[in-house]
Amino acid sequence: MERVRSLEIASHVGERVKICGWLQSMRRLGAVSFAVIRDGWGTVQAVVSEQKMAALDGVQLESVVEVEGTVVAEPQVELHGVSVSVVSAARAAPPVQLAKKLINAPLPALLEHAVVANRHPTRRAVFRIGAAAMRGFRAALDGRGFVEIQSPKLVGGATEGGANVFAVKYFDRTAYLAQSPQLYKQIMVGVFERVYEVGPVFRAEPHDTVRHINQYTSLDVELGFIESHADVMRVVVEVVREMIATAAATCARELELLGVRMPTVPERVPELHFEEAQAMVAAALGAHERGQPDLSPEGERWLGGWAEREHGSEFLFVTGYPMSKRPFYTHPDETRPGSSRSFDLLFRGTELVTGGQRLHRYDDYVAALDARGMQREPLEAYLQAFAHGMPPHGGFAIGLERWLMQLLGLPNIRLAVLFPRDLTRLSP
Amino acid sequence: MERVRSLEIASHVGERVKICGWLQSMRRLGAVSFAVIRDGWGTVQAVVSEQKMAALDGVQLESVVEVEGTVVAEPQVELHGVSVSVVSAARAAPPVQLAKKLINAPLPALLEHAVVANRHPTRRAVFRIGAAAMRGFRAALDGRGFVEIQSPKLVGGATEGGANVFAVKYFDRTAYLAQSPQLYKQIMVGVFERVYEVGPVFRAEPHDTVRHINQYTSLDVELGFIESHADVMRVVVEVVREMIATAAATCARELELLGVRMPTVPERVPELHFEEAQAMVAAALGAHERGQPDLSPEGERWLGGWAEREHGSEFLFVTGYPMSKRPFYTHPDETRPGSSRSFDLLFRGTELVTGGQRLHRYDDYVAALDARGMQREPLEAYLQAFAHGMPPHGGFAIGLERWLMQLLGLPNIRLAVLFPRDLTRLSP
Repeated sequence: MERVRSLEIASHVGERVKICGWLQSMRRLGAVSFAVIRDGWGTVQAVVSEQKMAALDGVQLESVVEVEGTVVAEPQVELHGVSVSVVSAARAAPPVQLAKKLINAPLPALLEHAVVANRHPTRRAVFRIGAAAMRGFRAALDGRGFVEIQSPKLVGGATEGGANVFAVKYFDRTAYLAQSPQLYKQIMVGVFERVYEVGPVFRAEPHDTVRHINQYTSLDVELGFIESHADVMRVVVEVVREMIATAAATCARELELLGVRMPTVPERVPELHFEEAQAMVAAALGAHERGQPDLSPEGERWLGGWAEREHGSEFLFVTGYPMSKRPFYTHPDETRPGSSRSFDLLFRGTELVTGGQRLHRYDDYVAALDARGMQREPLEAYLQAFAHGMPPHGGFAIGLERWLMQLLGLPNIRLAVLFPRDLTRLSP
Repeated sequence: MERVRSLEIASHVGERVKICGWLQSMRRLGAVSFAVIRDGWGTVQAVVSEQKMAALDGVQLESVVEVEGTVVAEPQVELHGVSVSVVSAARAAPPVQLAKKLINAPLPALLEHAVVANRHPTRRAVFRIGAAAMRGFRAALDGRGFVEIQSPKLVGGATEGGANVFAVKYFDRTAYLAQSPQLYKQIMVGVFERVYEVGPVFRAEPHDTVRHINQYTSLDVELGFIESHADVMRVVVEVVREMIATAAATCARELELLGVRMPTVPERVPELHFEEAQAMVAAALGAHERGQPDLSPEGERWLGGWAEREHGSEFLFVTGYPMSKRPFYTHPDETRPGSSRSFDLLFRGTELVTGGQRLHRYDDYVAALDARGMQREPLEAYLQAFAHGMPPHGGFAIGLERWLMQLLGLPNIRLAVLFPRDLTRLSP
């Protein structure tokens, strides 16, 4: 008999079908028992007679089983007249309970036993939504003439200026793990004008917080022949809209299971200049917010509330961050000294996307590096792109796991990663 | 005036348009000059009067320019009545010539100056075809219920048994760069049944050959509830077919530029068992081919010719490789002692895909590790998946760069990577 997937059984009422999957739960009620079988897509309840239940005597949950039965629609879609066989027996009870609607193990247990805990329907929902968001990301860009690239993850120097890089023993010398594809995606504007990359980035930040992990998935975009950062912001809005639309269209069950309210990206996302935003935050929260080179987390939250109240928008662009806070490649705003052609996109009061226009002239790079006391030599290949003609360009990056954490309201970013890496964790 | 992209000008004949891009070449013929402008999609020739050409006096090739002119269709689609302005001047002549139809710099110069050399139309063609192949790969799998995953690239132990791993200083201990997502994609069969990953893998192989690089892009697939490796081979064929179809459908110009003849994936790809294949090779090439645990490169080439002659197919499956040559997780073929449920897909006489069925029972893993003298402890998390129920499963992997090299007939795998990493190269 051909196997039927759990999500297809509703269209087989009255027929005899075979279901394959994991034995997620068993309830023995004497003459009749209930077994819930989970496959890659969902669960099916099977009503099993006492006699047929013998096949499950001593069988541990999470064993792989085959169930044949007749699909009935009342009182719910389930299997009756069932026979069961074990395909692959589990050796012990699962280390975390998978049968409860909400997973109730503490975070350390979830991380330690992620191999099994990720089988829980709520965990699977997180990663299905993540995969859908990536499909939306790529579809938005493929449709707009962007080319997907792969950049090197091993680089010769710690070139972006940060200290938080992992060193790799690379034959007889030292390489570093790339902190981002920033320099390469800019170089590639010289090749394709419009590029994107989805890949791992590595940050050796020794911070043990709910928002730090040491490997994450960066969704990176860069495009040429822009007028200003406003052109980049338009692409951000289109991309975020398609990420949300794809998740909503293909993960309705998962979003419902997690109780997630999906945001609407407004036709026009409201914008505030950094100086204006900071003045408003200072007026509301106190003068200590003033004169800082960045917004405080409380300030961002307040601005999120403001955008919601004043514009009915869960999204808010803050533009024109101080040059002093942005990386060396940031393009200044000549009309406002000290300000940059940059932006953050806040979502529900937290930064979701960072981007802006970059410098594009060789001499401007030399001046920017000199002003920051940075060496040119480790950036030689990068500077070569600008020595040989680069158009005005800019781009942005979205951290996939940060995005999932905020969209789904997860309390810890580790819950948005299948097998997270942090200060203390390299396994599973 | 709105910018028009090079590939759109043919639909603007008679109109005045603006083209933006890189000054790829200039030919001054006295009263009239020819400038070729390259944008992200193609090139446009502009016929420039002596007077207007003054704007390009002293301007280096690869400078970024804006050109306005009227589109004429005769003798070819080009711009007449042109005015030119420089957006961003290059500081020096390009280190490799970009105006010739074929790029004629030696490999070391191409690699050293990859930042600029990748702008050449033939180099761009390679990477556009690669991006198209990835779109096809993902589309084939998204449409078949597979979920895209991201696995950790930093792992706690050198767990797949190979010595060729890069060591990373991970805070106060040592981590290793993942050689493949093999163990994680198998674990994830326990979560989603069907998964794939596109990502970088790292091999510390100290080999300086035309086929070795130390970071490449692995296209990895794994699926559960299979009967045998034959189910995996069916997915391989569907995926490879869609990779080729997507490249053919979206990169016709690029394939023509590179002079590539696209293969057809036959309805049924011919298959040979390893023992049969080896016997045929030995009969044709000599007895030294016999009794080896693998096919020689010459043997694979001969088999490629055989499949072409006998079956009109550029693809050939060789199945049942000796267990001794395959990794510990390989499923044996109980019907042929010493043989495995594995396969290679040969394309034009070279291995393109490797895959097979894996063990799925805990006890079988313990026995396989013991038989090879491998420790269980570094594989503890992996073994946990099997202790808690795993279905029969299998999968395969395609090296994107190897695929491009073979499809496009590139003489060196480094030419299939934007910025390759090898024994001596960590930059650009």
